[in-house]
Amino acid sequence: MNEIAPFDTRVDPSVLAARLSDERAPDIVEALNDEAPEVAAAILLGLPTERAIEVLDQPELDCAADIIEMLPRDRVAGYLSGMSADRVTDVFREIEEPGRSDLRARLDAETRGAVDRLSAYGEETVGSLMTTEFVTVPGTWTVGQTLEHIRHVEKTRETIYAIFVLDPRTRALTKAVPLRRLISGDPSDNVLSVAPGRRPLAVSPTASREEAARLISKYDLLALPVVDAVGHVIGIVTVDDMIDAMIEKQTQDVQRFGGMEALPEPYMDIGFFTMIRKRAGWLCALFLSEMLTASAMQGFEGELEKAIVLTLFIPLIMSSGGNSGSQATSLLIRALALHQIRLRDWWRVALRELPTGIVLGAILGVIAVIRIVAWQKFGLYDYGEHWPLVAATVGAALVGIVTFGSLAGSMLPFLLQRIGFDPATASAPFVATLVDVTGLVIYFSVALLILRGTLL
Amino acid sequence: MNEIAPFDTRVDPSVLAARLSDERAPDIVEALNDEAPEVAAAILLGLPTERAIEVLDQPELDCAADIIEMLPRDRVAGYLSGMSADRVTDVFREIEEPGRSDLRARLDAETRGAVDRLSAYGEETVGSLMTTEFVTVPGTWTVGQTLEHIRHVEKTRETIYAIFVLDPRTRALTKAVPLRRLISGDPSDNVLSVAPGRRPLAVSPTASREEAARLISKYDLLALPVVDAVGHVIGIVTVDDMIDAMIEKQTQDVQRFGGMEALPEPYMDIGFFTMIRKRAGWLCALFLSEMLTASAMQGFEGELEKAIVLTLFIPLIMSSGGNSGSQATSLLIRALALHQIRLRDWWRVALRELPTGIVLGAILGVIAVIRIVAWQKFGLYDYGEHWPLVAATVGAALVGIVTFGSLAGSMLPFLLQRIGFDPATASAPFVATLVDVTGLVIYFSVALLILRGTLL
Repeated sequence: MNEIAPFDTRVDPSVLAARLSDERAPDIVEALNDEAPEVAAAILLGLPTERAIEVLDQPELDCAADIIEMLPRDRVAGYLSGMSADRVTDVFREIEEPGRSDLRARLDAETRGAVDRLSAYGEETVGSLMTTEFVTVPGTWTVGQTLEHIRHVEKTRETIYAIFVLDPRTRALTKAVPLRRLISGDPSDNVLSVAPGRRPLAVSPTASREEAARLISKYDLLALPVVDAVGHVIGIVTVDDMIDAMIEKQTQDVQRFGGMEALPEPYMDIGFFTMIRKRAGWLCALFLSEMLTASAMQGFEGELEKAIVLTLFIPLIMSSGGNSGSQATSLLIRALALHQIRLRDWWRVALRELPTGIVLGAILGVIAVIRIVAWQKFGLYDYGEHWPLVAATVGAALVGIVTFGSLAGSMLPFLLQRIGFDPATASAPFVATLVDVTGLVIYFSVALLILRGTLL
Repeated sequence: MNEIAPFDTRVDPSVLAARLSDERAPDIVEALNDEAPEVAAAILLGLPTERAIEVLDQPELDCAADIIEMLPRDRVAGYLSGMSADRVTDVFREIEEPGRSDLRARLDAETRGAVDRLSAYGEETVGSLMTTEFVTVPGTWTVGQTLEHIRHVEKTRETIYAIFVLDPRTRALTKAVPLRRLISGDPSDNVLSVAPGRRPLAVSPTASREEAARLISKYDLLALPVVDAVGHVIGIVTVDDMIDAMIEKQTQDVQRFGGMEALPEPYMDIGFFTMIRKRAGWLCALFLSEMLTASAMQGFEGELEKAIVLTLFIPLIMSSGGNSGSQATSLLIRALALHQIRLRDWWRVALRELPTGIVLGAILGVIAVIRIVAWQKFGLYDYGEHWPLVAATVGAALVGIVTFGSLAGSMLPFLLQRIGFDPATASAPFVATLVDVTGLVIYFSVALLILRGTLL
């Protein structure tokens, strides 16, 4: 729509700030993300304070921690106190000591207390994602009183999607009233008259982010209350925070599935050595495991010398096992993540993948046999006098390897979940490596079976 | 929280319906998804009509089309007219003729008109995702009039997140007022007094779903208006529809990245032959491409016969190229999807991947050389008299292949986007196959260079 074109960076930051100050905060964020942190900080200082706070509050701002550390200390306290506590907590996680303690000391008492509480929760928990700004009213209030209260707090609470009604005595959450139902009520009636019949859904601060995401998407919620052990509301997870968390998780999942550690920042912002580190770890681990293929082939050295024709098909056969495994893994990662399948269903999946693998392997086997026969008959290549047996070996090995690939690939996510990992830790290269070594053993075993007495 | 445990399927559907009727619609959906469509249809008939409509309205209901086709024709019209038009449109897409025309004829005129309009939009467009229930008021109304209007329509419009203010003359969209701002206004003031200063963000019905998702997540919107060429609001995309679309897209992306066609239904609901078809296509395509490795190896037959020791490292070297390619592809797919990188940045990425690939390849190369030296020195395996040259060949080939893998893997998503495909069509097996053939050629070329005159 009306997004901002990149601008000439030689222009004075205060000029840029003036040009940006009328834009929407997310657009300002995009413009700042294209700048070095020191330029971004200078631009931010040129914006009206309210605008600057709005910009710093956006989780999409890439180098927020760096920018905040560069701001003059007398200005930074004002900015931080205006930001939402959950965002300050996220930013603080990326600031090294002693900078963090210094900044923490500059917060007003209320924000500092909220940040301290939020930082106690692990990064993957609901507690670290929740907003501490929400609206509660006692169950003794009327609809009119509640509306009047909202009019007062509307300016400071950006996220009024629902009003939480508390038990007047215990202050525990009893109902959640959507804003639109509140409007439809009679102002003189009790607020509970417009409340839905059911107890509200809620989540514990120590629950996983995925659990909150699942509840919000399943029940189409705009905000999910977070309650402590005695039922007091301590925060809410809003749908927009949840979407940000979902997008982040999706990126991590894709990167992990690609066979590397997830990157903490966008591709272009990652330093060269961080990039190497995030990729080299898995690459080396896979390489070391894959070395077993060299050992396996050393073990079959005698066979290799007698029948070099067998080596021609090694890459073809092994890659097929890896590919079918990668398909099965991607299917099961998502089915488990969406709760379409539970851990106890593993045997159902195995019973499906077994025939699926056999049929897929047979299809590839037939193609391979046709190719060998065709090349032999049309004189494109001579596979030796025992070529029909070679063709049979390749075809049969493909059935075995693709079946093994489908089974191994589908069971891996279950195994990971069983031992307490995210099934999405499974990656295509990991499955391929797993299948490669076994694939070689299957291939040479089939060869020994079929070719013994002729080639071998 | 209070989700429903699976129940004994031998129980009478009407008993189940009675047990379910007090549950939340998404929980009823989960219970029905565990049943065969005929049982689900029977249970649905036992629910109060309003409950049944709410259940059918959930996109998470797996076999909605089958269930609707099984319902008695005199009941189905009432259900369909109660459902939201966008959901009916989605369900109709899955019903074959003549059933669809028959059902369409039973709709009331208003719903039929809406469904006809919505089905004209392609499945990947905003038009097919939008809700046609929304609230508009002319710009001449007061805050009080608007609130009164909302009180009247609240029952029929489930998705009041914002009120769209229209130009009283042209009926074009001029402002979007969030519900919470409306509450904070003075009832006797004009509705525009509480409107934000900016023109509202809007999207065209022919825009892609991704574009709507990007705007909603970037600007933290609860609803995005869809406007036609003259600025009339024809629908809204709500945040919950968007989340459903995001989750579906994520599943498709993971499955595609795993090297298969995306499945239209959950893993366990897919028929055996559909499953084979969705997987066999890519598997065969990859297999046929990978056959080039056999051709390449046939081309190097002479070298293979002279130096069987070279074959030992083929799987190891090839898989490393595929792994580094898979990493790079996963990085770039996400960076492009999140607009962190644009098409024109391809050369920046290439300039990053080149040194990254060289360093990663060098790390693996050093490991490989150490392994060969160790095995040789400790007498674990004899790589022949020219073993230092073999080690050099393997090490140098790894640098070349990992560099090529990183470059090819990172450029593939750009290429796909350039020729009009979704970059997420790139898959780990696809990249691996791409790299395998070239990898073999690199390996044997390096071998010829280093080993000519000794082994070759």
